[in-house]
Amino acid sequence: MKTKTLAELAGHVGGRVCGDASLTISSASTLERAGEGNISFLANPKYAKLLRTTKATAVVVGEEHESLAALLVVDDPYYAFTQIVVLLHGHREHKKTGISSKASIAETAVVGRDTHIHDFVTISDSVRIGHRCVLYPGVFIGPDVEIGDDCVLHPNVVIYERCEIGNRVIIQANATVGEDGFGFATHKGEHHKIPHIGRTLIEDDVEIGSGSAIERGAFDDTVIGAGSKLGDSVVIGHGTRVGPYCLIVAQVGIAGSTTLGHHCVAGGQVGITGHIRVGNRVTIAGQSGVMGDLPDGAVVFGTPAFDAKKAKRAYVVLKSLPDMQKSFRELETRVSSLEKTEK
Amino acid sequence: MKTKTLAELAGHVGGRVCGDASLTISSASTLERAGEGNISFLANPKYAKLLRTTKATAVVVGEEHESLAALLVVDDPYYAFTQIVVLLHGHREHKKTGISSKASIAETAVVGRDTHIHDFVTISDSVRIGHRCVLYPGVFIGPDVEIGDDCVLHPNVVIYERCEIGNRVIIQANATVGEDGFGFATHKGEHHKIPHIGRTLIEDDVEIGSGSAIERGAFDDTVIGAGSKLGDSVVIGHGTRVGPYCLIVAQVGIAGSTTLGHHCVAGGQVGITGHIRVGNRVTIAGQSGVMGDLPDGAVVFGTPAFDAKKAKRAYVVLKSLPDMQKSFRELETRVSSLEKTEK
Amino acid sequence: MKTKTLAELAGHVGGRVCGDASLTISSASTLERAGEGNISFLANPKYAKLLRTTKATAVVVGEEHESLAALLVVDDPYYAFTQIVVLLHGHREHKKTGISSKASIAETAVVGRDTHIHDFVTISDSVRIGHRCVLYPGVFIGPDVEIGDDCVLHPNVVIYERCEIGNRVIIQANATVGEDGFGFATHKGEHHKIPHIGRTLIEDDVEIGSGSAIERGAFDDTVIGAGSKLGDSVVIGHGTRVGPYCLIVAQVGIAGSTTLGHHCVAGGQVGITGHIRVGNRVTIAGQSGVMGDLPDGAVVFGTPAFDAKKAKRAYVVLKSLPDMQKSFRELETRVSSLEKTEK
Repeated sequence: MKTKTLAELAGHVGGRVCGDASLTISSASTLERAGEGNISFLANPKYAKLLRTTKATAVVVGEEHESLAALLVVDDPYYAFTQIVVLLHGHREHKKTGISSKASIAETAVVGRDTHIHDFVTISDSVRIGHRCVLYPGVFIGPDVEIGDDCVLHPNVVIYERCEIGNRVIIQANATVGEDGFGFATHKGEHHKIPHIGRTLIEDDVEIGSGSAIERGAFDDTVIGAGSKLGDSVVIGHGTRVGPYCLIVAQVGIAGSTTLGHHCVAGGQVGITGHIRVGNRVTIAGQSGVMGDLPDGAVVFGTPAFDAKKAKRAYVVLKSLPDMQKSFRELETRVSSLEKTEK
Repeated sequence: MKTKTLAELAGHVGGRVCGDASLTISSASTLERAGEGNISFLANPKYAKLLRTTKATAVVVGEEHESLAALLVVDDPYYAFTQIVVLLHGHREHKKTGISSKASIAETAVVGRDTHIHDFVTISDSVRIGHRCVLYPGVFIGPDVEIGDDCVLHPNVVIYERCEIGNRVIIQANATVGEDGFGFATHKGEHHKIPHIGRTLIEDDVEIGSGSAIERGAFDDTVIGAGSKLGDSVVIGHGTRVGPYCLIVAQVGIAGSTTLGHHCVAGGQVGITGHIRVGNRVTIAGQSGVMGDLPDGAVVFGTPAFDAKKAKRAYVVLKSLPDMQKSFRELETRVSSLEKTEK
Repeated sequence: MKTKTLAELAGHVGGRVCGDASLTISSASTLERAGEGNISFLANPKYAKLLRTTKATAVVVGEEHESLAALLVVDDPYYAFTQIVVLLHGHREHKKTGISSKASIAETAVVGRDTHIHDFVTISDSVRIGHRCVLYPGVFIGPDVEIGDDCVLHPNVVIYERCEIGNRVIIQANATVGEDGFGFATHKGEHHKIPHIGRTLIEDDVEIGSGSAIERGAFDDTVIGAGSKLGDSVVIGHGTRVGPYCLIVAQVGIAGSTTLGHHCVAGGQVGITGHIRVGNRVTIAGQSGVMGDLPDGAVVFGTPAFDAKKAKRAYVVLKSLPDMQKSFRELETRVSSLEKTEK
């Protein structure tokens, strides 16, 4: 474990120290859990009160705060803190296994330099894998798959034939890429499987969560754009295109032939129907169901999803609907009574 | 890749050509992406306008349309197109590995003719597997499992003990069949596991998506009826019976001891509670929550789910609830004012 | 299979027999499916009418019922029945494989007595596994993981580095424990991965369903409390703490840094947002979306979730919203008419 002074950390992230810059920091933690030698951060204002009680030696903050701990003031505290965590702790280190004799590797496969293939990995015919990748045990790579450089495939990840994986892609355990989509032609009550001749393309710097499933296209390829991050148990339908730099949280499902622009955010358990266009920088609150096209910058909530501010007001009124119904009936009676008097 | 004339394709699917029947077709694609030598199809009216711009050499259509491309007119365009895709491209071809010496196969297991067992597959005691099956790497087959003919189990599929899989069943990667259901007797605050002595039965021609989990019955078997298709990350509870020819889209969850009839459709992320009966030909819109029995032919939406037409109207009104509440309060004031005048 | 008299079973569970105590029982089943020699149970009043038609030899019931079958009367019928099923059928028996030569076990790993390591299992450096555990094929155990005694890890379960698993933990097939959470610092439109230096701790007597994913903490550990049971395809976010004896049904998602108390119940497909506190003995109905703190004993429903009784009434009124809107407009007309008369 590395140790750095607060001054060194401030230099690393381009911030300024408020307090004793010679303090030494050896580890990162949360405000609640941090102790001596720990650096923490404040990004969510909900936790601001913890500044007064934290036992952290220093805290990365966005603007000047009151705290017993030393402060490292930066523009973007969570990003600065992330840089510090990487500096102090590094990313996961992978065992350098080389190419295991217990893996099963086709003769026609090409594997780059410093790529580590663990035990019980299967690499099929004509696969091409770049440099400095790690394939953990139980990974299956189907025929003709291409994988770039610096990728990490965690245990039991499955990539079907002909899919393409870019550079610096991380796929967490038990995820599947390129399985057949839900494509059946129903004729006289029976469902006939349509061959899926499309592929799945995972662009550079994508991360895919555990248990997720990214269907291959029936004809058009399914695409996950560069820098997009998918959580656990996400399902992406066949022929759908997720633009670059999207955040797709756990258990989201996007049906087939839908297009998402760049920098979209879909909260946990969101469902998006097929054959629609979602614009750029669209934000969809958790559990919402999107049933139609959405313009750039839309912020939506609800099933069916609509403008989030309006939706939140509507769902507040929903709570008092029974009272409103009762008042309404009383009002009807009052009006009837007035009408009688009138006659 | 095979090449066929449009006349040959028309003969294959029982349609008629409108245009040059001697055109040669080598591949299938979507209207948007098709180029020379490609055949495409029009099934979703939303895409009809693409007929004017598509670069496809021919298009399969349902009734006469205007198009620059040659037309192949049939009764059921998506089904005819599926037949053409199968003719031109075929279904996935599986490597003929025979029985790998790197697989682990119990001596008491029986494996049929032309069945291929890939590396790192485990086949437990007294398993019976039919002819012409393919078991991809990492597949686990528990004791006493029976699998029919022509099945494909993709990588890392797990089948627990005593389950039965019919003929022509396809199970996508990382799916699980026959795990214990969520069965616990809570006594004095502790949850006691109930042994699951039932099984999971997967009938003929079923397909199960990646990451799905079909629990075994506690006592009654869990059954997936013949010809039903399940998407990715579907969960079916213990003792539940899905009838034949159902379409269960991705991320649907059906709790235990529920019965679905035949030809039901459950959209993505639908939840169905336990211990209920859903009739035949029931359609449940995506994200709906079904909380009670449904009669044959019901079409429902919402949580709790009710008649889809009524539900869609109700959810439209929901959007304007805050306005309605405001108008209602104004009306109350007007009535109070009238009442005062009255006195 | 063991055979017991009804008298013996009554002694085993502390109940009394109503009928012929010398009847012999060899197996357990449901009321609908039971036949001669079977014992069944009645816990859900919905099935009470089956008491008159069941072919079971005996039925475990809670208070005196009318039945042609013999009755075994106990305080807690489902728990008593569970005890009987365990007595008659036992829990799953695991093949005693010893430590397979086809497994890959690091030299620095320590494996306890009577622990069975199946083929194609990977055990990484410095792992410690207790006594009488079973690790099925395809299981991956990352470096420095600690596993207690009497655990069962079904096929293809993946445990990431440094996680801790207690005693008597059962993890169903294809589940993942300790993958990285969804932690990215977005800076100038790019998402930067934060190293996850926390762990996942699974306490004693926990069961985790197939395909579930329990993220490791970014800093604070993710904890699943003793005796809690998680269904299939559940996702638990980084740093979240689920208290002891919770029931988390299939497809539930809990975002990061949230705390659940003890004895909480989350129905299928429930979503719970991050950074909130859910009290003890809280019940959340299926498909609900919890967006804020909940006090002890709360019972909630809906998205956003609120008091379940009120929510159910509100959703009933929702169904008739279009009618209410129409009546409201008529009332407005009537009031306008009265106002005109007034002038």
